[in-house]
Amino acid sequence: MDNDGVDKVIEAFRNRDNFLITAHVNPEGDSIGSQLAVYYILKRLGKRAVMADHDDVPENLKFLPGSESITREIPKDFRLDTVIVLDCPVRDRIGRISDCIDERPFIVNIDHHVSNGFFGNVNWVDREASSVGEMIFHLAEKMGIEIEKDPATALYTAIITDTGMFNYDNTSKETHRAAGELIAAGVNPKAVHAEIFEKKSISEIRLLGRALTTLQLEEGGALAHMSLTRKMYSEEGVDRVSTDEFINFPRSIKGVEVAVFFKEDGITREEINVSFRSSGRVNVNIVAAHFGGGGHALAAGCTLNCGLEEARDKVLGGIRKALGVGA
Amino acid sequence: MDNDGVDKVIEAFRNRDNFLITAHVNPEGDSIGSQLAVYYILKRLGKRAVMADHDDVPENLKFLPGSESITREIPKDFRLDTVIVLDCPVRDRIGRISDCIDERPFIVNIDHHVSNGFFGNVNWVDREASSVGEMIFHLAEKMGIEIEKDPATALYTAIITDTGMFNYDNTSKETHRAAGELIAAGVNPKAVHAEIFEKKSISEIRLLGRALTTLQLEEGGALAHMSLTRKMYSEEGVDRVSTDEFINFPRSIKGVEVAVFFKEDGITREEINVSFRSSGRVNVNIVAAHFGGGGHALAAGCTLNCGLEEARDKVLGGIRKALGVGA
Repeated sequence: MDNDGVDKVIEAFRNRDNFLITAHVNPEGDSIGSQLAVYYILKRLGKRAVMADHDDVPENLKFLPGSESITREIPKDFRLDTVIVLDCPVRDRIGRISDCIDERPFIVNIDHHVSNGFFGNVNWVDREASSVGEMIFHLAEKMGIEIEKDPATALYTAIITDTGMFNYDNTSKETHRAAGELIAAGVNPKAVHAEIFEKKSISEIRLLGRALTTLQLEEGGALAHMSLTRKMYSEEGVDRVSTDEFINFPRSIKGVEVAVFFKEDGITREEINVSFRSSGRVNVNIVAAHFGGGGHALAAGCTLNCGLEEARDKVLGGIRKALGVGA
Repeated sequence: MDNDGVDKVIEAFRNRDNFLITAHVNPEGDSIGSQLAVYYILKRLGKRAVMADHDDVPENLKFLPGSESITREIPKDFRLDTVIVLDCPVRDRIGRISDCIDERPFIVNIDHHVSNGFFGNVNWVDREASSVGEMIFHLAEKMGIEIEKDPATALYTAIITDTGMFNYDNTSKETHRAAGELIAAGVNPKAVHAEIFEKKSISEIRLLGRALTTLQLEEGGALAHMSLTRKMYSEEGVDRVSTDEFINFPRSIKGVEVAVFFKEDGITREEINVSFRSSGRVNVNIVAAHFGGGGHALAAGCTLNCGLEEARDKVLGGIRKALGVGA
């Protein structure tokens, strides 16, 4: 941990008075949970603070006490002197919130992204931390502020969403120590998990079923792919569902090196969203980039403006080449 | 923790010489992982020890180093004086292994089940522990035995399989502390998770898809049910797949109070396995018991000797009654 950074954050929290707490566009568990916990700490210090984000709080995080106070606008009469930016590698990631800030404020940048650009007046960047939530836990501990059940639930939410339930490589001994202390502070792990991960719609589950029945293995089981069509959506009588987790199913098959998920999306069928996952041998970022997309070596995506058949032909051809089996 | 129990276990480990380490029939992550870690501890103490179970090590646990030494028979020339029984509420749960023990051995009973019958000469029963794996971690710590990467991976496996990745109510501050120390000892959480949970067959995933497309909601969304038929199996060209996790999908729908999964099984279609999950209001153990089955208040099962339609009518009628909406 960067002790110099955390000390300067504590100094800013103690010495300054009117705080805006914000995070990135499309906020998720780590940004919402960390915002709520920072708000709690500032209130315990007797400070004035507001929370605002570019987008609304996602449905599955609205159970977090206090999340109803996170707005999309800064109250007109609030004269802020300090902006706390959470979980953002660059300042632009706070989106429209940037426009709401009149003068040049003092910026406290708290983040765990490797790519953080140190854009703050104070920067605390811990690339080893699983989540900003884990960092805020350490901050409260270092300040000697007792975390009650509600902020503990917010921080636990931040940690489990950013680690995939303690599964990803970012999970360390410190991550588990934080989680254990938060449970001791009153968090109910099963109830939190149910709120975040077990509030699906029947349409989402039935569409997952339809997509899974299209699953195919090729190249001796190294390549798995499946598709979701507009027809499936219309047969279920829905326009959109969250399909973020669908790609995990082909990925979880034994022997699969690359999993690909094709989704007809947009207003016409001539737009295909493609998600890629790799188990390590193939860099799917390179394949996605070839089709104008991007991501990471193990998880990437792209969009093709063509029909489903054509998209499948092109993309699977690219994967076969990357696997060293195609032309 | 029961300090008297753990001290007597340590005394038995130190004073006795020839150990059989066994666990329950149909061994899973906690029993296999704990067996391997106990074996490691005994070897560090310079003892002779063998591991044997009623059933084979499940496929998804064979990645655990040393698991190949767990046999289904006790070597003929091994003269045991002590049997360590892990994760068994009653002695009978060790199955056929009981028959292999000639004389009355000294039994060390290490378990975390509420219902444990204290059948050993030494009994260490910690009902607060998430898993026997968590108990063995504390045992090693108390004995001052350093846990190397392989036994750490075995204990981590025990903990994550018995807590559903730190999700179930049995997950405590101590559970997380143990997991954190095991990661510090070299466990790779993502790799272990992949070995245990991400080695599925395409048939399993495609059959899950087929089952999900049968999903229905009733009673204003409080009751979700789905079915898997022999026809679906034969269309996928398989006889059996693991369907243990299928019930989690209807359970994860927002608003569902009771989820039911019907599975045609056995040689004829006239045998229907039914799994129940409740979100709390309905005690599904009572419903299952009405049909000759059982389990717990939130998770139960039963088998009906009739056709699928008849089983659905009967069981869903029972659930409607329990929900207070049926006749």
